[in-house]
Amino acid sequence: MNYKLIFKLIGNVLRLEAFFMLFPLIVSFIYGGGDYPAFLWSIFILTVAGTLLAMLRPKDKNFRTRDAFVVAGLSWLFLSLFGALPFYFSGYFNSFIDCAFESVSGFTTTGATVLTDVEAIPKGILFWRSFSHWIGGMGVLMFMMAVIPSVNASSVNLLRAESTGPSPDKIVPKIRETARIMYKIYIALTVLLIVLLKAAGFSIFDSLTNAFSTAGTGGFSNLNASIGGYNNIVAEVIITIFMFLFGVNFSLYFILIGRRFRKFFKDFELKIYFGIVAAAILIIAINIFGLYGGIWEALRHSSFQVASIISTTGFATADFNLWPTLSQGILVLLMITGCCAGSTGGGIKLIRFIILVKAAKVELGKIFHPESVKSVSVNGKRINNDIVTKTALFFFVYFAIFFVSVLLVSIEGKDLVSSSTAVIASLSNIGPGLGIVGPSGNYAAFSPFSKIVLSFCMIAGRLEFYPMLVLFTPSVWRRGLIK
Amino acid sequence: MNYKLIFKLIGNVLRLEAFFMLFPLIVSFIYGGGDYPAFLWSIFILTVAGTLLAMLRPKDKNFRTRDAFVVAGLSWLFLSLFGALPFYFSGYFNSFIDCAFESVSGFTTTGATVLTDVEAIPKGILFWRSFSHWIGGMGVLMFMMAVIPSVNASSVNLLRAESTGPSPDKIVPKIRETARIMYKIYIALTVLLIVLLKAAGFSIFDSLTNAFSTAGTGGFSNLNASIGGYNNIVAEVIITIFMFLFGVNFSLYFILIGRRFRKFFKDFELKIYFGIVAAAILIIAINIFGLYGGIWEALRHSSFQVASIISTTGFATADFNLWPTLSQGILVLLMITGCCAGSTGGGIKLIRFIILVKAAKVELGKIFHPESVKSVSVNGKRINNDIVTKTALFFFVYFAIFFVSVLLVSIEGKDLVSSSTAVIASLSNIGPGLGIVGPSGNYAAFSPFSKIVLSFCMIAGRLEFYPMLVLFTPSVWRRGLIK
Repeated sequence: MNYKLIFKLIGNVLRLEAFFMLFPLIVSFIYGGGDYPAFLWSIFILTVAGTLLAMLRPKDKNFRTRDAFVVAGLSWLFLSLFGALPFYFSGYFNSFIDCAFESVSGFTTTGATVLTDVEAIPKGILFWRSFSHWIGGMGVLMFMMAVIPSVNASSVNLLRAESTGPSPDKIVPKIRETARIMYKIYIALTVLLIVLLKAAGFSIFDSLTNAFSTAGTGGFSNLNASIGGYNNIVAEVIITIFMFLFGVNFSLYFILIGRRFRKFFKDFELKIYFGIVAAAILIIAINIFGLYGGIWEALRHSSFQVASIISTTGFATADFNLWPTLSQGILVLLMITGCCAGSTGGGIKLIRFIILVKAAKVELGKIFHPESVKSVSVNGKRINNDIVTKTALFFFVYFAIFFVSVLLVSIEGKDLVSSSTAVIASLSNIGPGLGIVGPSGNYAAFSPFSKIVLSFCMIAGRLEFYPMLVLFTPSVWRRGLIK
Repeated sequence: MNYKLIFKLIGNVLRLEAFFMLFPLIVSFIYGGGDYPAFLWSIFILTVAGTLLAMLRPKDKNFRTRDAFVVAGLSWLFLSLFGALPFYFSGYFNSFIDCAFESVSGFTTTGATVLTDVEAIPKGILFWRSFSHWIGGMGVLMFMMAVIPSVNASSVNLLRAESTGPSPDKIVPKIRETARIMYKIYIALTVLLIVLLKAAGFSIFDSLTNAFSTAGTGGFSNLNASIGGYNNIVAEVIITIFMFLFGVNFSLYFILIGRRFRKFFKDFELKIYFGIVAAAILIIAINIFGLYGGIWEALRHSSFQVASIISTTGFATADFNLWPTLSQGILVLLMITGCCAGSTGGGIKLIRFIILVKAAKVELGKIFHPESVKSVSVNGKRINNDIVTKTALFFFVYFAIFFVSVLLVSIEGKDLVSSSTAVIASLSNIGPGLGIVGPSGNYAAFSPFSKIVLSFCMIAGRLEFYPMLVLFTPSVWRRGLIK
């Protein structure tokens, strides 16, 4: 491993984080609340630690795939731990583990909180929570790549390690340009959302924070009752639409900007995404019809919740803990599927399900035509067997980590529904689950051990497992053995 | 499709079933209870229908892979539907759907019951329930192959379609010989168990029926409190050991008979099976220690339950619905893993998990050595990529059917834990789940629609999906299109 280069890059990530923390610092100056020293101290520590690491002078200029995976895994770990400092210094949290949980939950765009009363928290801290969603949504390494010159050709692996989906591709030949275009689209959509929310009657602060939480498909909210607490139906509709939009593969927006409408509308994952959302909204609306005044009220809540869960945002306007089993079942399934690859959302991603369903059909077809060499193809492109195997293994690893984590979390003896949906909501970066972690609940009641397990799930899920699993490979830490 | 040959074979299956029904007929004559006409009528119908079908004279002698899959799927469907006739004629069931559910549950060795009071049922019917476990355990097509000359070389596919595991192999070159050896081992173990249970103080009837239920890893019992109702600790220990034994790959017993001890004890799946069972027993015993008098009592219940669940038998001596979450979580996980391939047990099978974990490790290793061509191997044998992909897809199909079935079952609005564990318990052919389908519950409360869905899950799980999925392929039923 090229440790010097790895930690030099992590130093840059920390300095970047210090820069990002200037924004909540400004907010805390404007709105008061007494939390500005928490940010000053954190920025100081980050700058010192970041600068020291960035001063490393690696002799070896080689940056291999494995180095990229270790950088991705460690960056997110460091980003989250240092990002917890303002929470810790603010004094509003019970322990450092709680702060780390909240910070991991922020950067991984999960939105699971240990706070039982968010309305008592000063605005600077609330801003940092939502802003961490925005930073984590598109990815901090992607940002770094957009602003500083890339290390070398292998750094495309950094991009791969952080982006979502089975085979993320550069949309333009240069990595740096790709990263810039992605961030430009991301910023443009976020700004549009801020303007719309302000127009719908939100305060500047609420427009900014809720836009950040929506854009990153995070879900941290400034009110205990989440978005439902605003009682603003126009804002709800706007957020519903934007949650859906941020669940779309961003390279499709690039295609849209290039006016390649036919390619945009023919994208199979987008069609399936739209189809599933429409079907889920309809079925749930019919299923919860009796609980609400009329069909419009049922549609309002079902569309908000479906967009919120499939995009893995986790905002709420209603307590789906009280909905019928069928609606809950659909929502849990959407938690697992997630939205499109290359979006800011989490979960297994629809494209993986598309590949696996098609592969299972091909397998079934072999019974009829044993000699057939039919292969899987999506959007007219052939998916080679290696990708099919990787995708199927991804599915297996998701459930393997799920089962092990549920057993670990269930040691403390919370009920099975709460324990297992907490793990799903963490792995898929959603936030709310069912039972005690339902939309009106939180993660405060879990033991420190469970919180560590769930934090691991959040980072593992955000980075799609391998960058995190690599860190558990002993040879990574055995000096000299692997060069 | 070679329909004439397919239905001719099914005719033979039905005649075989008529023969099998002679045993419960004798039992009903001996013990009374007035259920003998139910068997007489059923045997009559089966003989007529079977003989009519067996009279078909196919001109085409070709028997292809697809024909074998269709025969397997249809045989199990017909076997279950006709096997429901004695239940229906006996008058102890509420509807034909209930009878079909009970019969499917019997042949697939699930052991889920719709009866709320089994102790009120006459002995002939009880015998048929347990005997259907025994028939289904090793497989009716395997039996047919052992007694009647095989059709042609392609009929090895019949064996494959019915046996369990990723790549069932002939242990001797001839199929018929393989089937005979398997049944000889199966009968020998069953007879040994009958003798032991009789020696432990069971009546002849209870020894026979419980031995059949154990051998097939079924789980139907003659008492409402299952095996716990006998209050016979010696019998409990015997059954615990035999449940474990019937979860072992039967070809290992063939190896053992051949005195190839080294090969037997080096089998990786067997080691993992033993390791998981030991670990699960220990952890659960510690976890439930407080609920029972002492460590021995805790070990007694934990070992019985672990053996019962991992072998997918489903007998109970304690209500694990009342156990702590960790113990429940472990049991649910064992429900999904199941035991060894080539056993009478259900579930995904441990060998598949072994292959997938190894494949995931190889995938992780590629990050360190991108050019590596390392492959998965088990017991020193290389597993080719095609098997890895098939195995990973099997895992996906299991969960795809699981999710769809949970949604369908949850339409009627039972709680999520009951609905989802009912589906797992059906797919993995276990019987009891959690909630209303816990060890002290039953499946009576489900709607007819849910019962049909769960019946489908049982057959699909028993045949490891493809023979069942093939029946849903439209081209199978489009005459002439596929020849």
